[in-house]
Formats: sequence, C-alpha cells, structure tokens
Amino acid sequence: MSKSYLSMTKEELLNEYNSVKAEYENLKAQGLSIDMSRGKPGADQLDISDGMLDVLSDGNFKCENGLDVRNYGILDGIPECKKLFADLLEVKPENVIIGGNSSLSLMYDYVAQCMFNGAGFAPWSQQGKVKFLCPCPGYDRHFAICYFLGIEMVNIPMTATGPDMDAIEEAVKDSSVKGMFVVPKYSNPQGITYSKETVERIANLDVADDFRIIWDNAYIVHDLGDESDELVNIFDILPDKNKNMVVEVASTSKISYPGAGVACIATSVDNVKEILKRLTVQAISYDKVNMLRHVRFFKNVDGIKAHMKLHANILKPKFDAVIDTLNSDLAGLGIAEWNEPNGGYFISLDVTGGSASRVGVLCKDAGVTLTSVGATFPYGKDPSDSNIRIAPTFPTPEVLSKAVKVLTTAVKLACLENLCK
Amino acid sequence: MSKSYLSMTKEELLNEYNSVKAEYENLKAQGLSIDMSRGKPGADQLDISDGMLDVLSDGNFKCENGLDVRNYGILDGIPECKKLFADLLEVKPENVIIGGNSSLSLMYDYVAQCMFNGAGFAPWSQQGKVKFLCPCPGYDRHFAICYFLGIEMVNIPMTATGPDMDAIEEAVKDSSVKGMFVVPKYSNPQGITYSKETVERIANLDVADDFRIIWDNAYIVHDLGDESDELVNIFDILPDKNKNMVVEVASTSKISYPGAGVACIATSVDNVKEILKRLTVQAISYDKVNMLRHVRFFKNVDGIKAHMKLHANILKPKFDAVIDTLNSDLAGLGIAEWNEPNGGYFISLDVTGGSASRVGVLCKDAGVTLTSVGATFPYGKDPSDSNIRIAPTFPTPEVLSKAVKVLTTAVKLACLENLCK
Repeated sequence: MSKSYLSMTKEELLNEYNSVKAEYENLKAQGLSIDMSRGKPGADQLDISDGMLDVLSDGNFKCENGLDVRNYGILDGIPECKKLFADLLEVKPENVIIGGNSSLSLMYDYVAQCMFNGAGFAPWSQQGKVKFLCPCPGYDRHFAICYFLGIEMVNIPMTATGPDMDAIEEAVKDSSVKGMFVVPKYSNPQGITYSKETVERIANLDVADDFRIIWDNAYIVHDLGDESDELVNIFDILPDKNKNMVVEVASTSKISYPGAGVACIATSVDNVKEILKRLTVQAISYDKVNMLRHVRFFKNVDGIKAHMKLHANILKPKFDAVIDTLNSDLAGLGIAEWNEPNGGYFISLDVTGGSASRVGVLCKDAGVTLTSVGATFPYGKDPSDSNIRIAPTFPTPEVLSKAVKVLTTAVKLACLENLCK
Repeated sequence: MSKSYLSMTKEELLNEYNSVKAEYENLKAQGLSIDMSRGKPGADQLDISDGMLDVLSDGNFKCENGLDVRNYGILDGIPECKKLFADLLEVKPENVIIGGNSSLSLMYDYVAQCMFNGAGFAPWSQQGKVKFLCPCPGYDRHFAICYFLGIEMVNIPMTATGPDMDAIEEAVKDSSVKGMFVVPKYSNPQGITYSKETVERIANLDVADDFRIIWDNAYIVHDLGDESDELVNIFDILPDKNKNMVVEVASTSKISYPGAGVACIATSVDNVKEILKRLTVQAISYDKVNMLRHVRFFKNVDGIKAHMKLHANILKPKFDAVIDTLNSDLAGLGIAEWNEPNGGYFISLDVTGGSASRVGVLCKDAGVTLTSVGATFPYGKDPSDSNIRIAPTFPTPEVLSKAVKVLTTAVKLACLENLCK
C-alpha cells in the first residue's frame, strides 16, 4: 500500500506531483480514444443471444392461447412471456404487463400517466407542486424523466444498505412528495443491494394512496460471480395500505439485446388495470413476435440464469481489471474510495476534495470518456463533486486496463493539483 | 336489380318481411361464428413476410453507419430505415423518426406531448378547452386518443373527395380547435382518397402556429388492384406559415406484421427536434434489429410495392366477395349505400332509417361480429345510426360470403321492421 497523500510533506507532494504529471503526459501521448460513458454490453455479450434470431424458423407462430403472434391483439403480452417474467420477478402473471424493448419507456409512460391522469386519484399535476425522492448517486435517466415532466427532485444520500431511510421517512411527510425512483439491486452506479431492513422500511412508508415507488429492477439476475446479493421481494411484505405503492420494471436489455429486448412492468392488479386503460388507447399490442422469440429461446427462469452465467464470464474479468487497477494505483493514498460490487453494470468511484469534474476533464483530454461527472445526481449537480461512474462493460479488458490507468493517474493528478496549491 | 322497398305496397312489404325473416332464421340456424370487427390481415397475408425472420442469419448486424443494431443507441432510427420510409413518404430522411411497432403509439405520444408540453408554444392543456376536428365516419382509435386526453371532438362530415372543407375552414376559426386526425388515403372506413383540392385547402388552412394535423397515412401503398388513387404530398405544397402543421405517420403493420412491424413519423425538422426532446427522455432507442430486418427484406420502395401486390392478390377476392354480395342482395332496394374502394382495409356501408344498431344486433345474434356500430364516430355515437364498417380482410372469401349474406339479410330485415311498423 502506498503512502497516503494526506500524510506527505509539501516536498513529497511536489515530487509526487511531478512524477504523476509526467506519467499523465505519457498516457496522453498514446492518443487513446476509449468510451466508458455508458453501461453498454460488449459485442461478445451480444453474440451469445444470436440463437434467438432464428428460434422461430420452424414457422410455429402460435402462442399458448392459440393466437398468431404476428397479428394484432393481446395488449398485455402473450401468456408464456407474462409467466416467464412473473417467475423471474416472483409475482403472478396477473401482475405483469409485457412491454416493448424499453423499461425506460414503461417508466416514462407510467410517471407521465400519474402526472396527467393520476394514480387512482386526481392527476399529480393538479395537486400542486410534485416532488420525487432521488437516492443518489443514481441513474441519470430517472432524473431526466422527473426533469422533463416538471417533477422537483429531492436528493437522498445512499448508504451501504440502500438509501438513507431516516431521510426518506422524514421527507415523505411533505405531501407534495409523490414518489421515488430506486434501483434496489446492484444499484446504478454503486452496485448496492438494498438490505432487508431497507426494503421493510420502504414497504411500510407512511404515504398517501397515490404515492408511487418505481422499483427499477434492471439488474435482477445480473450477478458477476458466484456470490449473489439477495433482495427481499417487496411485494411479499407490502402492508395492505401500501398495496398499490410499488411499480416494478425489468427488461432483457442486458440479458438478450439492449436494442431489441423485452421489457415488463409488475404491480398490483389495480395498477395493472389503470395502466391498461391508458395502454388500450396508446397501442394495439407490443411486439409479440419478439416476446415469443425470447420465451422460445430462454424457456424459463433457469434458462435465463444459465444465460447470465455466460455474461458473467465475460464481465467478471472486466470488473476485475478495473478493481485491480484501482487497488494497485489508489489504495492507501487517502484520496478515493470505490465499491467492489457482486453484480450490475458499474463501479462507482468517489474522489476527495471536489475534484471529480477535474478528473473528468483530465480523462477526456487523454482520450478517455467517462459518464459526465454530475450525471449521477439530480440536475446533473453532484454537491460534493466527488462521484465518478465507471462503466467497464463495453471495452475489452486490455483497453479497459489502459483506460483505468488514465483514470487513476487523473485522480492522483487532480488531487495533487489541489494539495500543492 | 330488385324493386325498391320504398316503392312497395304495404302488402308487398309484409310478404318481403316474412320471406327475409325466414331467410334470416335459416342463416341464424347455421350457428356461424365469424369476426369481421377489425382490420386484421389473414394468416396467408402474414406468411408472405416470413422471409424477414431469418434475413439476419448471416450475422451481419452493422447498420450503414457502422453501429451494431443489437446494442443501445440511435434514437431516431437506423439511417437505412429512415431512408426507406423517407422514400416511401416522399420526404427527406431528416424529416423522419422511426418508431416501434405502432404508429398508434407515435400518434398518442405526440398528441399527449402537445397537450402537456405544447407544440412549440404553451401546452394545449394550459390554453383552455382543446378541440379536435374529426372527419367521420373515421377511425375509432383516433377518437379514443382524443377522448382519453380530454380533447373535445367536433364532427366533420366526409364527402366523396375528403372531409367537408367548408365546415373545416369555418370550424378552425374557433381558436380552441387545435388539431385534426385524418386518414388521407383509402380512409378508414370509406376508402376515400382526399382530392387535390381537398389537400390544397387543408395545406392552406388559416390556423395558429401550434395547430396540428395528424396525417395518418396508414394505407399509403395499400392498393387492391391496378387502379391506384393518387394523393398529393401535402409537404410539397405547405405554405411557409403552416410548415409545422402536418405530422404524418405510417407503418408496416399491414405490409409486414401487425404485431411486429415498424412505424414512422414524418414532419418538419422543427417538429422532429421537439419530438426528440421528449423521446430522449422516454427511450434509448426503438428496436433497431427489427428496423434492419425490414430494410434487408424489402430493400427499397420498389420492394415494398412488389410485396403489396402479393397482399392485393389475397385481398382483392375478399373485397370482391363483399361487393358482389352487396350488389346482388341490396342494389336497387333504396335502403343502403356502400363504397367500392381501390385500396385500404374496409368497406363502408350506410343503411337508411337509423337501423345500423339493429343490423349490428341481428348480425351478432346470427354469429357475425361487426365493428361496434357507432365506433366510426366520436364518442361512439353515429348521429344518424347509419354507418357500418365491414372489415373483409381476415376471413376467407368463402366464410366472408356467408358473413355478408347474414349482413345483407340483417340490413333488409332491420329496414323492413321499420317499414312494416
């Protein structure tokens, strides 16, 4: 372990600065061009689902109930696909609607519906100011939905066991707080899985009947190794008074294809009815051919889990490459902290001294594009300018090692610039 | 040609009633169960697109710009699919956004956006009452969008050349009228194509900058025979003041698969930008694998047109079966009128004396389900209870002949019930 920067003398810091600065210039001179900005699977991950593309070549287009999936009909999804997702999410098929290729669209459409048509009561937009709680760092596209729909965002700090529940229980006393976006398993970007206590406290929140939690279970089966985090099924423990509070979404974007997967929404039967009232106006059906393709390819939850092992085999070395470089370059310096997640798509790095923006600029100048610093917070503003989201899935491990070397060097340099002022 | 009921004596009418009643009871005794309620292609029509399902089996997933269609990205559609639809709609690719499998969703989302975010100005919903003009008979799902979003519908009668333009020019003087849904080619249900004069008068309407016409070109290449109706490209003749007025949609729902086609929206570059502002929040991309499948299968507009000939070969005998039965059973009776369209998916039948609802009941009792009578009008209310939409595409010609025999018998019976009162 290296000596902490915080215990160095001025002279030691200047020497270190000169050394790191030289290393940074060397790295910059390589003329890299590496994109680590988004949680995109690599091409090798996409290949493992290609068997899906000709799984319908036997010409059998009938789904379980006899309907030809190529034609109109079945607004809520073909029965076998509802069952597959119900099994995956541990709910009943009656709680599930199958969507198109995007859980993001299901979330946007649902929150927009609550805003303009209401969640069983008056439209949120007619009840005065509307606020959402946003555990952060979090997923930028959740924040974008709030921003676009005019929903004010309230930062809730994350802890090692999920969002700060004391802060949430206090915040929901404000009746203008109508909901919350969460990623309860392998959270984006920290890879944190909400603890049993956290889920229990969420389930029992003292909120109005039209308060809604968007339970974005994007990484439900996205383990990296043999150690899998356990998430309590919140539907199993919801008290009757909160029976309509949780709206879960998931998708195969990172199981089959990001551009051509299948998404689903799972919630109470009452909420399903409310959603179908809108959906029956908005669509005739989602793409049932693609639903059938997924069911025929994966067959059942075990099929999905076996498939996820193939993803993990590809992803684990990438995550290891990042963690190893972070450990070897930054451990003990006292200037950064990071997580070592058991699943998900990201590694979250926190740097000290408000230098995350500077790190982003240094990386970019050296050809490495990170997720925009600040993007993991509402309004794009990280109050302590500390969080950096690393998306290690798309580059190869070799490219990744180069990129993370740039990153760790930039972290040291930004920090030393401050310390040597 | 038969003798008109209107010139029959009371005795002749009673004889005819007894004869028709007996025929109806005979038909009823057959125990038919035929659904002619929706414009669904038959299974033979679906089969002709099945080549599309393994068109990507060569493993080449790169679209023109080098991006892997299986992954995230490209919100507005892959370039070659934008070009295909731009060519089909005779606009530029920059005017096109490719959607998912549903033009209905593109329309719903766009009108909802105008309501709650505005069409370049204040949200419609914040400008007081919002009304839409509805040429009718028309498409029930257009009316459903208006109804769900709280838009008041104003009936505009259809003529042989399109909607009554005098009525429209008068109605738009009311500034709460913010838009109009139209099916300008082979209109649903009458199969009318708007004349050059109608399109010119629509293009030059004196309306506010945020007035929008949803130009639902659902049947753009859906000819039934060699005679094709010509529709003026409204974008070519829009005066500058109305450059953002028209928002066109189309889809391959009745070209490839209703459940798994590709839809598009075409409009001014300004409108495209406004739509993308919402779409960037609502989605990461639509299904690009399916876009590529369509482009690789159809190749170009000529490919689509050749494919449509295959559909026409299947559909023409079905339309002929209906028209022939209508002609042989109802011509000259003075109790019904119908169209003989050159394309589209429907035949529209108008019966006299406010008896359409009764015809619907008689058909249903004899096992033939029609589109709900009234559905072709706003609020489901046909003011003269006269219009019946016949959807002849799904049943086989043999089944269709049986069904239409039930229909014509029901029309005669309902009319005679009135005349014999």
